[in-house]
Amino acid sequence: MTEAYIVGIDMIAFGRYPGRTVAELGAEAALLALDDAGLGIRDMQALYCGNLLEAHLMLGQRILREIGLTGIPVINTANACATGATAFREGLIAVKAGLHELVLVVGVEQMGRGLLGGSSRPDGFVEEGVLGSSTMPAMFAQIGVEHARKYGTTFEQFAKVAVKNHHHSTMNPKAMSRRETLLREVMESEMISWPNTKLMCSINVDGAAAAVIASRSVAQRLGLLGRAVRVRASEMTSGPYTPQEFAIPDFNQVTRNCARAAYEGAGIGPDDLDLVELHDCFATAELIHYENLGLCPDGDAGRMIDAGETALGGRIPVNVSGGLLSKGHPLGATGIANLYEVATHLRGSAGTRQVEAARIGLTHVVGGSPGRGSACVVHILEKA
Amino acid sequence: MTEAYIVGIDMIAFGRYPGRTVAELGAEAALLALDDAGLGIRDMQALYCGNLLEAHLMLGQRILREIGLTGIPVINTANACATGATAFREGLIAVKAGLHELVLVVGVEQMGRGLLGGSSRPDGFVEEGVLGSSTMPAMFAQIGVEHARKYGTTFEQFAKVAVKNHHHSTMNPKAMSRRETLLREVMESEMISWPNTKLMCSINVDGAAAAVIASRSVAQRLGLLGRAVRVRASEMTSGPYTPQEFAIPDFNQVTRNCARAAYEGAGIGPDDLDLVELHDCFATAELIHYENLGLCPDGDAGRMIDAGETALGGRIPVNVSGGLLSKGHPLGATGIANLYEVATHLRGSAGTRQVEAARIGLTHVVGGSPGRGSACVVHILEKA
Repeated sequence: MTEAYIVGIDMIAFGRYPGRTVAELGAEAALLALDDAGLGIRDMQALYCGNLLEAHLMLGQRILREIGLTGIPVINTANACATGATAFREGLIAVKAGLHELVLVVGVEQMGRGLLGGSSRPDGFVEEGVLGSSTMPAMFAQIGVEHARKYGTTFEQFAKVAVKNHHHSTMNPKAMSRRETLLREVMESEMISWPNTKLMCSINVDGAAAAVIASRSVAQRLGLLGRAVRVRASEMTSGPYTPQEFAIPDFNQVTRNCARAAYEGAGIGPDDLDLVELHDCFATAELIHYENLGLCPDGDAGRMIDAGETALGGRIPVNVSGGLLSKGHPLGATGIANLYEVATHLRGSAGTRQVEAARIGLTHVVGGSPGRGSACVVHILEKA
Repeated sequence: MTEAYIVGIDMIAFGRYPGRTVAELGAEAALLALDDAGLGIRDMQALYCGNLLEAHLMLGQRILREIGLTGIPVINTANACATGATAFREGLIAVKAGLHELVLVVGVEQMGRGLLGGSSRPDGFVEEGVLGSSTMPAMFAQIGVEHARKYGTTFEQFAKVAVKNHHHSTMNPKAMSRRETLLREVMESEMISWPNTKLMCSINVDGAAAAVIASRSVAQRLGLLGRAVRVRASEMTSGPYTPQEFAIPDFNQVTRNCARAAYEGAGIGPDDLDLVELHDCFATAELIHYENLGLCPDGDAGRMIDAGETALGGRIPVNVSGGLLSKGHPLGATGIANLYEVATHLRGSAGTRQVEAARIGLTHVVGGSPGRGSACVVHILEKA
């Protein structure tokens, strides 16, 4: 298989755009990524589009209608919160297969307001899980409570995740919320589902991000290797059978399997990473993923946030973009926005939030819900 | 790139299954295809799932929940009527890339009753096109009227398509409708949108089809090459810019581009084909695609159906399965069901409807609508 590189990547500022269509938002991100590569839509040999909420409505084709109906293959994918990452990975596979040499990937979502994930049923009915509600806030509450039970993790430790990510977002001009929060403010904001308060839940926003993927030979020929980012691993897993999953949600194993495959694929370990963008859909999720991604031993996540190891300037900065908690979480765009953040650091272009001398970074998304199954995607990127 | 083969393929009988879930229908097709290959879900390295109407609801993962949560990558795709073919093509690319050696592809749809395509807008509002309604029946009516204007094609010639396909379906135990129709009956049935009567419109049904794709080396190692079918070309296009498309729907160019690429890719021409399953969503569509796929010169489609050239036993049998008009059209399943039909003939297993000595066949789907863009996929299959 051919080596594949990100040669252009960008995102729109996450926010609320009620007056624009989802196709317009995707088209804007596409043009930004093409500009970043110094290429045009005529150079692209395929479009991979990730969008969840209009997954049945040919969004990729509607984006081409905005920026150029060149007749290229258009593949529309959906995979819950892993939607954008799935589109990117499929585009990458097509390049690695040698089928295409230049592929455009767009992830986009128009979310409107509200909390992530009410009912997961098409009829709007909210099913109750074995241990309570199966809504997203309730599931990630249970995940946090289970971690606290096993390891003594505290409410304050979970809240510190939100303080960190909100602080990071003050340095990111493309984040939705850019407001510093105090620990006390996070802990005293509206309780959504213990232990996650409102400031510990990801923000529903509209957003779009896009990337141009090139084969090594084309990246070289076009003189794009200087700013290019190599994709060293791209792995995907689905929720495996675990006895636990049928009682309370198990969002650990799917990430553990995916991370292990990615580290093996890249031939590196967690200690080699300079930064991580992981799926902090709720503050509780970020802490469990420290362990799932091998950033610390099991049970050590609480200590890790206390010690500031995952803050900018710490041992392994996590969600320097502000994360889903503060940058925002437009489902279909999230996976590609994560890649944008890591790529920007590897290129040394992250401004005041730059992770110094970053050479290798990891992105992680995991989506779905018990009963519907889950999807996890991990990418490892490296300065070309 | 590695050569890729279909080593197992099957479909459920198309029909109405209001008491079953779409995941159950997909799971049944998956198990049939796995049985056909003599393999199990544990042998599969990835699942590619095509479904349109629940595209945002992780259908592939829900299918694994029925047949085995093995933790493999699950990719959900949607692309209007090309949904199943898109899933198949993505699975094929992963095998050709050398990423996987055995991939399961499932296409499934639960349609309920009614005519294909009322409103194409999420809010249910029916937009009027420049020359009238943009509903599917109206669009394909315009396509037929335009062909009649240019070439003198008659109502009777369009109706003969339905007579032929309904006749074919009487020999297909998996078709929804298996009733012989007379030309007069077709012409006198309820007029939906001139010149397509109700018997000239595809049938909304529930359905599922699945395939197992293997690399050459694995197919050989498992002793599966004997019944295997080689995928000689797999091409996809999206609707290119044509000045016409913004006035009346142009469903010709997207297929012409795709067919040309497929013939080039396979190194053959239309004269080498022994059978074709093409996208007869309406009787008018079948005739225009004779020309778009190069089965006859432009303007000759009417003569071709009069001469019986596309009937079983004719020069180039088309839609021997009964086609969408009579076998039925469960959107996400259609693309893979087409592959099943051609593969079954190449294997010599088509029973009373067998195309004698079939060695090479073509499948074609095209979906979408003006304003939303379109997608076309053409596969060329050959006896291994």
